[in-house]
Amino acid sequence: MAGQARVLYDFDGQPGTSELSITTGEILNVTSKDVGEGWWEGSNQRGLSGIFPAAYVEAIVQTYNVPPAMPPPPLPQIYVEENTAPVIQQQQSQYDDDWDDDWDDDVSEVNPASHANAAPGGRSNSDVGSALDVNLAGLKLGDGKGTVRKNLNRFSHFVKTGGEAYILGASKVTATDSDYIHIIETNDGITWAPNPQPYSCVVASPKKESKLKGLKSFIAYQLTPSLNNIQVSRRYKHFDWLHERLVEKFCIIPIPPLPDKQISGRYEEQFIERRRLQLQSFVSRVSNHPILSRSDVWLHFLTCTDAKRWKSGKRKAEKDEVIGAAIFSVVQVPEKALDPLQLDSQTEAFGRFVQSFDTAVRTMQSNFAEQVKRQQGPYKRDYQRIGQSFRTLSTAMELLETAPLTRALAHTADTYDQIALLCEDQPRLDFEPMGDLLHDYRGLLASFPDIITVHKGALQKRRELERSATEGKTESNVVVRAQQRTDVVSYTLLAEMSYFHQERVRDYNAVAKIFLQEQIVYYQKIVDHLQSTLSQYKDV
Amino acid sequence: MAGQARVLYDFDGQPGTSELSITTGEILNVTSKDVGEGWWEGSNQRGLSGIFPAAYVEAIVQTYNVPPAMPPPPLPQIYVEENTAPVIQQQQSQYDDDWDDDWDDDVSEVNPASHANAAPGGRSNSDVGSALDVNLAGLKLGDGKGTVRKNLNRFSHFVKTGGEAYILGASKVTATDSDYIHIIETNDGITWAPNPQPYSCVVASPKKESKLKGLKSFIAYQLTPSLNNIQVSRRYKHFDWLHERLVEKFCIIPIPPLPDKQISGRYEEQFIERRRLQLQSFVSRVSNHPILSRSDVWLHFLTCTDAKRWKSGKRKAEKDEVIGAAIFSVVQVPEKALDPLQLDSQTEAFGRFVQSFDTAVRTMQSNFAEQVKRQQGPYKRDYQRIGQSFRTLSTAMELLETAPLTRALAHTADTYDQIALLCEDQPRLDFEPMGDLLHDYRGLLASFPDIITVHKGALQKRRELERSATEGKTESNVVVRAQQRTDVVSYTLLAEMSYFHQERVRDYNAVAKIFLQEQIVYYQKIVDHLQSTLSQYKDV
Repeated sequence: MAGQARVLYDFDGQPGTSELSITTGEILNVTSKDVGEGWWEGSNQRGLSGIFPAAYVEAIVQTYNVPPAMPPPPLPQIYVEENTAPVIQQQQSQYDDDWDDDWDDDVSEVNPASHANAAPGGRSNSDVGSALDVNLAGLKLGDGKGTVRKNLNRFSHFVKTGGEAYILGASKVTATDSDYIHIIETNDGITWAPNPQPYSCVVASPKKESKLKGLKSFIAYQLTPSLNNIQVSRRYKHFDWLHERLVEKFCIIPIPPLPDKQISGRYEEQFIERRRLQLQSFVSRVSNHPILSRSDVWLHFLTCTDAKRWKSGKRKAEKDEVIGAAIFSVVQVPEKALDPLQLDSQTEAFGRFVQSFDTAVRTMQSNFAEQVKRQQGPYKRDYQRIGQSFRTLSTAMELLETAPLTRALAHTADTYDQIALLCEDQPRLDFEPMGDLLHDYRGLLASFPDIITVHKGALQKRRELERSATEGKTESNVVVRAQQRTDVVSYTLLAEMSYFHQERVRDYNAVAKIFLQEQIVYYQKIVDHLQSTLSQYKDV
Repeated sequence: MAGQARVLYDFDGQPGTSELSITTGEILNVTSKDVGEGWWEGSNQRGLSGIFPAAYVEAIVQTYNVPPAMPPPPLPQIYVEENTAPVIQQQQSQYDDDWDDDWDDDVSEVNPASHANAAPGGRSNSDVGSALDVNLAGLKLGDGKGTVRKNLNRFSHFVKTGGEAYILGASKVTATDSDYIHIIETNDGITWAPNPQPYSCVVASPKKESKLKGLKSFIAYQLTPSLNNIQVSRRYKHFDWLHERLVEKFCIIPIPPLPDKQISGRYEEQFIERRRLQLQSFVSRVSNHPILSRSDVWLHFLTCTDAKRWKSGKRKAEKDEVIGAAIFSVVQVPEKALDPLQLDSQTEAFGRFVQSFDTAVRTMQSNFAEQVKRQQGPYKRDYQRIGQSFRTLSTAMELLETAPLTRALAHTADTYDQIALLCEDQPRLDFEPMGDLLHDYRGLLASFPDIITVHKGALQKRRELERSATEGKTESNVVVRAQQRTDVVSYTLLAEMSYFHQERVRDYNAVAKIFLQEQIVYYQKIVDHLQSTLSQYKDV
């Protein structure tokens, strides 16, 4: 049993298949999410069961009304000075099965971080070393009387990533120069400071490699960054590890998703090529991002060629303290204070946009997936059936004589058979690239609700402090510091929103063009085939 | 209950619809042939019922093993000298319902023909006035001892149309000059003598007319033959009457079929236009045929503008004696005797071809009808769904701004909606003209088995006479006359085979070209639409 799901869109199951018709608003019991190709299995309230497109439903997360099956985890130790940075526990079991030896040996070495060193100076919004902030948190929480109360909902993402601790000035991190993130104001608004050394990276055709004298074989992808033009070899699980690090570290930046682990491709070769294209898309998105592209863990992944350095870099990344909400501590923003009211309306509009965009992406993804199936199934067969009609006609007429007409009819039959193959292959060139883009955006968009929640929580906390100050319960300098800190959170959101919009326009413009260009080539090929067969018919 | 049918081709019913899956060789109980659009309804041996394509089955005619529900009709009076021409009984009831008054009043006036006048001379294969022949039939049949026995199977088409009577020299007809039919030998083989005054005829867009002060309304088709350029107005039932006359008269020539009486068109206008095209095809086929184009009944239909002359011409056509096998009496053929052995192999090969061609035509007709449904249903919806995907995307993005990208995406949505409409309309231009041709050929091909049977029966009768002569039971001059007469039958078959082949090549060449040209235009239009929408995307 994989929980329940709420139906977002109507879906009419094809009669006679195992597809389940579902109606918007209906609650389904999900029995399997492992059906593959974007389908889930489940049953409706009337007891009918079958498969349905995962994109048409949303899983219901039952955190509030249903007691958890396991006791709740201990509260994060973010309010204890000695251990302020949130530590995401390494899930060792996830890697034990198929991790290489050179990776596995250090998986269990993740230790609680130590937090002794202060960050370098400058006009810093960092809370490193602010005793007052630490006290505020400690004291107010301690006696339970203050107006600034800790949000006790332990499931809140805001709390989980240490965002509240940051606003309250309770988080401390050890950061190096390279950790610092800069946000600037340009004519285009608030943006990330661009990468001064932009680069790209090519993912080459993967190779099948083996180890343990051929006992284990795997696919290795060859990455060549323009940074140094040195090729590195990475496996999918390395990508997976990297992805987890990036998600952990950049709670404010949607990390591009990796391709799904299980995609069923009809042809081994086509599957590998598509996987390469999807990884190329991931690598390009990270390489192009002004912040992600410069992160230590990414550069390590992209450039390390030495096994020993690889191991130590991996350990370092897993011990990184500047992760989760702690990242706000290393963000450098413009001096200008932001208008909270304007922010409210901006983020609300953005939230609505994200929701609507997400729906559009799901709809398109589901429609396009369906279209691919249709072209590779019924459409192909329909063209073949037209071809077969002409062939039967030609064969019948050949009983009498082999005339120009019988040859022309046979040629027409061949032509429709060729068109059938074109039709089957075509999605690889138009629908699948669009599908890959949609996959990327579903991943990116899925991150925004949490990011918006972090921001909303920060603004709320700031208002609580402001109210508390007007009532004389909080000192004004505490409020000013909190306002500066929420501005940091807001600036990061604005910078990422701006970057996201710019990428969105670029991406959809480019992929829609590719889609249309390939559709044109496809239909033009059909025209050419038909013209060639038309020329076989002579005047009689 | 509409009898039984044998399944000719497998058909997989669409699950969840009322379609019945059928398997080659299976026997079905047909419950209705009035389903329309080429479908019949029935049940299989397992008790499952549903609809299936009529083209995939053949009706089982249970003439041999099952006693007829009604007593058999009286034997045709073809061996009585006073009444040798077979008279096809006018089925009055068929017309009583909707026949105009000016037609109805003389429906019951069909009388037995009189047979007094001899045909004009020349080297004639006519049996008119040959007392010997009449005697042969009368005597030999009378005592029941002769080796030349009358074929007692009353259902045989050969007998029914008086073919045997003709070979036996028992038929006598009244013929006029215009009745005579000439067959010649050219470099292309045995052919009908061409029409010395070839003409064409245009069927113009039909008009809705009414009579009885608007109480009755009907569609009238305007025919303008190039013979005289005088337009005549004809209704479908006039065509129907004419068709029946032609079938009755020319048992040796496949008469092009009329469009089916009940075709459901989605749009009234499109239905009427397609009906016009189908009638145009019928009119052209008759006008082009060297023999049909010159027949009195056809010329009467094509040129009569006067109500009184119309009535008398109609009565004359219904009293025509030169119908059925009697037509052989007026056929003038080359002197050269034909080789029966060569004829055997020729007609056998032709029979196989007809069967194979018929199968091909049915297959194509069924496949194309299916394709039309697919393009007007699922294909159209698929294009609309692609359009809808782009529209949803554009609408979501418009929440933020109306940028060139959102406009381009909306344009793309419109484009796919337009392509959906093109796709829906397209069959009218490619699949339907081919479908109309196939409909014509199913009608034409359906006539050939009977024609071949007539010929086979004639050859068989001739052999019986030849055997009888070697045994000294038949006089040699009787045999020679019978040989001449079977040659007439063979010559007509060879002439019509030759004409049929020539038309077949011309027709299929022309319609395949139209089909491909229209397919090219269709796909080219899609290319143009896509190119226009591609140009909406700007570089970003």
